[in-house]
Amino acid sequence: MRRILIINGPNLNLLGKREPSTYGNIAFEDYLDTLRRRYPDIQTTYFQSNTEGALIDKIQQAGFEVDGIILNAGAYTHTSVALQDAIRAIPAPVIEVHISNVHAREAYRHTSMIAAACRGVICGFGMDSYRLAVEALLDI
Amino acid sequence: MRRILIINGPNLNLLGKREPSTYGNIAFEDYLDTLRRRYPDIQTTYFQSNTEGALIDKIQQAGFEVDGIILNAGAYTHTSVALQDAIRAIPAPVIEVHISNVHAREAYRHTSMIAAACRGVICGFGMDSYRLAVEALLDI
Amino acid sequence: MRRILIINGPNLNLLGKREPSTYGNIAFEDYLDTLRRRYPDIQTTYFQSNTEGALIDKIQQAGFEVDGIILNAGAYTHTSVALQDAIRAIPAPVIEVHISNVHAREAYRHTSMIAAACRGVICGFGMDSYRLAVEALLDI
Amino acid sequence: MRRILIINGPNLNLLGKREPSTYGNIAFEDYLDTLRRRYPDIQTTYFQSNTEGALIDKIQQAGFEVDGIILNAGAYTHTSVALQDAIRAIPAPVIEVHISNVHAREAYRHTSMIAAACRGVICGFGMDSYRLAVEALLDI
Amino acid sequence: MRRILIINGPNLNLLGKREPSTYGNIAFEDYLDTLRRRYPDIQTTYFQSNTEGALIDKIQQAGFEVDGIILNAGAYTHTSVALQDAIRAIPAPVIEVHISNVHAREAYRHTSMIAAACRGVICGFGMDSYRLAVEALLDI
Amino acid sequence: MRRILIINGPNLNLLGKREPSTYGNIAFEDYLDTLRRRYPDIQTTYFQSNTEGALIDKIQQAGFEVDGIILNAGAYTHTSVALQDAIRAIPAPVIEVHISNVHAREAYRHTSMIAAACRGVICGFGMDSYRLAVEALLDI
Amino acid sequence: MRRILIINGPNLNLLGKREPSTYGNIAFEDYLDTLRRRYPDIQTTYFQSNTEGALIDKIQQAGFEVDGIILNAGAYTHTSVALQDAIRAIPAPVIEVHISNVHAREAYRHTSMIAAACRGVICGFGMDSYRLAVEALLDI
Amino acid sequence: MRRILIINGPNLNLLGKREPSTYGNIAFEDYLDTLRRRYPDIQTTYFQSNTEGALIDKIQQAGFEVDGIILNAGAYTHTSVALQDAIRAIPAPVIEVHISNVHAREAYRHTSMIAAACRGVICGFGMDSYRLAVEALLDI
Amino acid sequence: MRRILIINGPNLNLLGKREPSTYGNIAFEDYLDTLRRRYPDIQTTYFQSNTEGALIDKIQQAGFEVDGIILNAGAYTHTSVALQDAIRAIPAPVIEVHISNVHAREAYRHTSMIAAACRGVICGFGMDSYRLAVEALLDI
Amino acid sequence: MRRILIINGPNLNLLGKREPSTYGNIAFEDYLDTLRRRYPDIQTTYFQSNTEGALIDKIQQAGFEVDGIILNAGAYTHTSVALQDAIRAIPAPVIEVHISNVHAREAYRHTSMIAAACRGVICGFGMDSYRLAVEALLDI
Amino acid sequence: MRRILIINGPNLNLLGKREPSTYGNIAFEDYLDTLRRRYPDIQTTYFQSNTEGALIDKIQQAGFEVDGIILNAGAYTHTSVALQDAIRAIPAPVIEVHISNVHAREAYRHTSMIAAACRGVICGFGMDSYRLAVEALLDI
Amino acid sequence: MRRILIINGPNLNLLGKREPSTYGNIAFEDYLDTLRRRYPDIQTTYFQSNTEGALIDKIQQAGFEVDGIILNAGAYTHTSVALQDAIRAIPAPVIEVHISNVHAREAYRHTSMIAAACRGVICGFGMDSYRLAVEALLDI
Repeated sequence: MRRILIINGPNLNLLGKREPSTYGNIAFEDYLDTLRRRYPDIQTTYFQSNTEGALIDKIQQAGFEVDGIILNAGAYTHTSVALQDAIRAIPAPVIEVHISNVHAREAYRHTSMIAAACRGVICGFGMDSYRLAVEALLDI
Repeated sequence: MRRILIINGPNLNLLGKREPSTYGNIAFEDYLDTLRRRYPDIQTTYFQSNTEGALIDKIQQAGFEVDGIILNAGAYTHTSVALQDAIRAIPAPVIEVHISNVHAREAYRHTSMIAAACRGVICGFGMDSYRLAVEALLDI
Repeated sequence: MRRILIINGPNLNLLGKREPSTYGNIAFEDYLDTLRRRYPDIQTTYFQSNTEGALIDKIQQAGFEVDGIILNAGAYTHTSVALQDAIRAIPAPVIEVHISNVHAREAYRHTSMIAAACRGVICGFGMDSYRLAVEALLDI
Repeated sequence: MRRILIINGPNLNLLGKREPSTYGNIAFEDYLDTLRRRYPDIQTTYFQSNTEGALIDKIQQAGFEVDGIILNAGAYTHTSVALQDAIRAIPAPVIEVHISNVHAREAYRHTSMIAAACRGVICGFGMDSYRLAVEALLDI
Repeated sequence: MRRILIINGPNLNLLGKREPSTYGNIAFEDYLDTLRRRYPDIQTTYFQSNTEGALIDKIQQAGFEVDGIILNAGAYTHTSVALQDAIRAIPAPVIEVHISNVHAREAYRHTSMIAAACRGVICGFGMDSYRLAVEALLDI
Repeated sequence: MRRILIINGPNLNLLGKREPSTYGNIAFEDYLDTLRRRYPDIQTTYFQSNTEGALIDKIQQAGFEVDGIILNAGAYTHTSVALQDAIRAIPAPVIEVHISNVHAREAYRHTSMIAAACRGVICGFGMDSYRLAVEALLDI
Repeated sequence: MRRILIINGPNLNLLGKREPSTYGNIAFEDYLDTLRRRYPDIQTTYFQSNTEGALIDKIQQAGFEVDGIILNAGAYTHTSVALQDAIRAIPAPVIEVHISNVHAREAYRHTSMIAAACRGVICGFGMDSYRLAVEALLDI
Repeated sequence: MRRILIINGPNLNLLGKREPSTYGNIAFEDYLDTLRRRYPDIQTTYFQSNTEGALIDKIQQAGFEVDGIILNAGAYTHTSVALQDAIRAIPAPVIEVHISNVHAREAYRHTSMIAAACRGVICGFGMDSYRLAVEALLDI
Repeated sequence: MRRILIINGPNLNLLGKREPSTYGNIAFEDYLDTLRRRYPDIQTTYFQSNTEGALIDKIQQAGFEVDGIILNAGAYTHTSVALQDAIRAIPAPVIEVHISNVHAREAYRHTSMIAAACRGVICGFGMDSYRLAVEALLDI
Repeated sequence: MRRILIINGPNLNLLGKREPSTYGNIAFEDYLDTLRRRYPDIQTTYFQSNTEGALIDKIQQAGFEVDGIILNAGAYTHTSVALQDAIRAIPAPVIEVHISNVHAREAYRHTSMIAAACRGVICGFGMDSYRLAVEALLDI
Repeated sequence: MRRILIINGPNLNLLGKREPSTYGNIAFEDYLDTLRRRYPDIQTTYFQSNTEGALIDKIQQAGFEVDGIILNAGAYTHTSVALQDAIRAIPAPVIEVHISNVHAREAYRHTSMIAAACRGVICGFGMDSYRLAVEALLDI
Repeated sequence: MRRILIINGPNLNLLGKREPSTYGNIAFEDYLDTLRRRYPDIQTTYFQSNTEGALIDKIQQAGFEVDGIILNAGAYTHTSVALQDAIRAIPAPVIEVHISNVHAREAYRHTSMIAAACRGVICGFGMDSYRLAVEALLDI
């Protein structure tokens, strides 16, 4: 059974509450249920934190155990060299995802400090971005 | 029956011949066969050109007919305002794809002039990037 | 009888269809009829292409024959050194026009690679920009 | 009867005296006579000042009275946020004009701080730039 | 009795008329009455000019007489080294204020050439920014 | 009774100990007592953390409960997109404050990543910056 | 017998007509005759196009057949990532040439997007740049 | 008898009062007396204004009458294209002077928008900078 | 007896596991034993965290107790103003160390936001960088 | 008999010893013998120095005597305004050469401070770059 | 008797030979004779070198002996931190001079790395720049 | 017996004389005596020059003979590509040292053109930086 870890970064715990015009109105936990039902053969665990260091801790710990990590690093995407280093330090492939199309937003959201260390990037498909990342991991 | 157009930009006709360490060694036509067999209910057409204007012509013509466009604009991704304008001018959703992880390559490949006009972006999964784009279009 | 060539660049064949809030809803051919009726003593020819090279071909060929060129190079305005070189290579005066006020749009539309080689620039007056360019050519 | 105000900024009082190879050798008042004779149905008033604040004063006062303003802000074009604010604050449409083709001169003359607030821009046609602006206002 | 001078720069004489969605619809003189009634023990004088030099003249003259200056330099905030020099040249403390939150507007409004010479900055609270500046001066 | 939360970011727990020439020599808790006595009708709570994520946690939790937040994000002001996102995600108005005049210090302290999401900014008045922010919240 | 392909990019079909002070007054075809007579043992073919895509098509097709390509990409030299990709995709060595000394012209002509993919660069020797490139290819 | 005009820009009327550690403690009028006594054969007139436009007015008027202008444009030195244009428009040679060594101060004082239009630049010698400029004019 | 605190930042807990070609294959704890044996007269404590705020907490607490701090801030070196502020706030001297030669890696690793607040910098000597820092502290 | 001077700049005395994968393994003196035998009718002298000033001395002295100079300025190519000035000061034509393709190396090797003053540039052909420069000089 | 050292940097030994339209046609030694006759009470020594290090050697040696140094560092002006350090290391005042108006030349000649360490700067007066520097030294 | 060469660049011959607040007041020769007594088993030679080329000459000659080089390149650190090339060309490891903490000084002293070619960097420890470099070499 494949093990996949989904990690959400800062403010993504507010999904469903925060700026619904940008992020939709479903809480992530509800979406996760749907996703698990669609891929019953995959063991999907979930972690969220607003703290950069806690995200790194999790990547370091899980990165030697799971088969793949789906990472929406939120705002840390654009500034965190430390997350990039964590991703490079583990054997599990990491996929960068975003709910919104970051390229259609402010200029400082167009650059990613972590993409170069990831296997690939998926952005702009709403919650479906996570499912596409699952699909991508299944194919690796 | 859904109609999807896949457009490949400059030098992607050489897939299978060109820099295999970066782009793999399958010709795109062979991959297309596999893709069509996997999604028999979708009518997939394909277009490739090395000429920016020809890509625009095709987007303009097909953009009022198909249900979605998967666009790998190759090197024009990083410089073409004209392609962006074409994408904005049509009703069909466009998904930007790349075979390689452009963020792990030269700095001038990290920016996209067209992403802001697209629905979303998928990059880094080899040929599988195209299939993930099909999946994404099915979900829109 | 004066001969004037009007050249429209990429995506301007969609005038009347594309983003009407920005570009209005008249097709260029319809506008051209009005213009010709208003200036019956001028022989006005028209060319449109989405291909940078085709625009250069036309400028090179017509630039030794007509009395003036009105050029709306669309998105190529902001990036094309090759169009600038073509304009410098011909004896006919060229006037750069834009339908919308490009200075009120995205930053990358504020610079023109071709303006320095043109006689002058007219932008922001909708279709009337073309008529003003005709007036300008009559006065040279 | 239409009322149009023409405003000239710094150093344009020297037209006819200053750098004739760039600006020609006609004083602006002489040109204004010609212009008024050509458009007898328009009431054309004229104002010139070398002081940024005086230009703003004039725009504020006339901007609620005239049907259009033709503004050659001279060197203030490239630096004045305050003029931009004044233009945005009034109902009358403003057209930015330049006698010379500013894009063919020094790089710091290629940007305009006021163009985004204007209806349109006309530059490079010598004194005739003012007449084209009159034509443009008649068409609005 | 404390003496405070309030100085408003370019276009702020249009308050109540200009872009009400940004600047509200109260004329500054009306606001000033309210402010004076709220702080009857302070002698509040007021000066407005659209001319950078007139603002400097006023700062130089009053800066040796009053107990504090509240300065909304409007658009000159972002470009005027001369205002900065004037502020540095006088003994009275100067507080920079803005009605709107300049950081939420265009990028060229995010930098202040005068802030470094001021005691402090208050922006974004509408007309109340001036009252807060009075409060701040009372506490110095 | 109004509820206001004051949040202090990194190193502000050292107030009174750290660089007194820049930050004064009063501990923040002592200042807080004075402030509470001055505004007895306001319920003022206080939170400090050196961890970006903990600041975000607090903003998210309190942002749906209090009537206003006064945020001195310290050094995170200049780099944290994540704090900006948290501020945008909550209904309570947030005011950015700084004790020192950041514009008179190093260049990297002149930009704020969070100001655009805040209601307004107050800086440079020493501890009194917090009281002015209270005044500002009372007026909203 | 060695096969060498010479490719000229945009506006180089006007050699002998265009800006003779910069490019001389010999048509390229005339120069080609001289060159062929000087190197009778080399089979020299020639291609010119103003279209970026057509240049790429030619490089792709010839790049697997000839022993070397001499490429004067004209204005596309400075902007075309797509040409760079095409050069990297083929086995034949490519030499970048320019007639004029591009480093003594406008700043945007000082950078080459294709040089890194070429074997070497020769510029500034007038038509003789092509002959030196032939010499260079003979030595590889 | 030679006629020389000395023009001082913004805040230089405060010489002797303002930041004595930078500008010394002699009022300019006192210095001027000394200077006139030292060069009795030169007719030295003097003008000061804080208004950019007034400086331009003076340059335009005197520039056709005097034998040379010594211009300390103060803070306008670093930003005023309009002053540059005024200097280029007159026949009299203009010398840019500064009391302090501007290169040893803030970075934005290292660039001069007017130097290119002046005959030469003298800075850093205190009041003596003006005398050296007189010497320089005598030698032209 | 001298007390020295060694602080390691993000991902340095993986030393010996992570990218051995860059960081070697010794766990830091093993190295620490060696170091302690070599300097038996120094009391060496050790702290590691992936969280910026936790590093600041530690610096603040220890900075008033130990005789020196050796800080390898890892990726936070390049971005953290907050760490810089913490270092400036404490009396103990801090030495910045790096295992690898950061100047031979990606450009964003060439700048340090904390170096200016440190006593000195040592980088590139593998684990021995720490010992050299101990030597340096002994000499202060 | 033609006189040509070849000048090699810093570190080129190590040719054959230094980084053979980049520079090949032939000492320059050996190559020079071959070159002289190939062009027996040309008098070729040679000079090498690691000192910028010595290179300038040589250019100044020989520049009035020889028929052409072939200059490989090595690392000084990218920074030396003084060498550029020396080249402009002499009548002999100078050709800039490089052994490696500098455009395929670090970014700071892509710009040349001396190219604009040279007749032309040849780079990337190994030692053969010098011979091509001889050929170019023969043709001038 | 005052001792003044005049130091000329790279290529200034060619004065009278090099680019006479920029630098005039008098050799510096001839000018020096005139200068010495004009100021018989000053002991003027002269040094020229094309080598940066030799200029530093001279400044270091003379800087503790003479009463002032007049330095025309030529092209090293714009790049040499080492010369700046040398100037800061000596007690004698140094005046930067230039023959031409460097601000009217290429952009890279507008910045001076040494001006901040000098007492003042004089440029643009031809050979007379040196005499003005003598005058300035006499007044210090 | 180990052989170590210490090389000091421009102005470091003035140690003990120059800006003692920055560089201390010991001449380097005196420090060298202390160092040699502390490490009697190492043969330490010393070289100083103000000339970039002489430093390169020395590195090239000694780089094939000694066991390590300690290089304080002074101001050339920040600009010299040629020194970098020399370091790359030799087998001996080179350590970059600085007496002062260059990161706490002007911005142009924060970058090093040579660090990437060195084994490591040590800065900020006064004269002790050299001893630490000796320690580092002993450990390699």
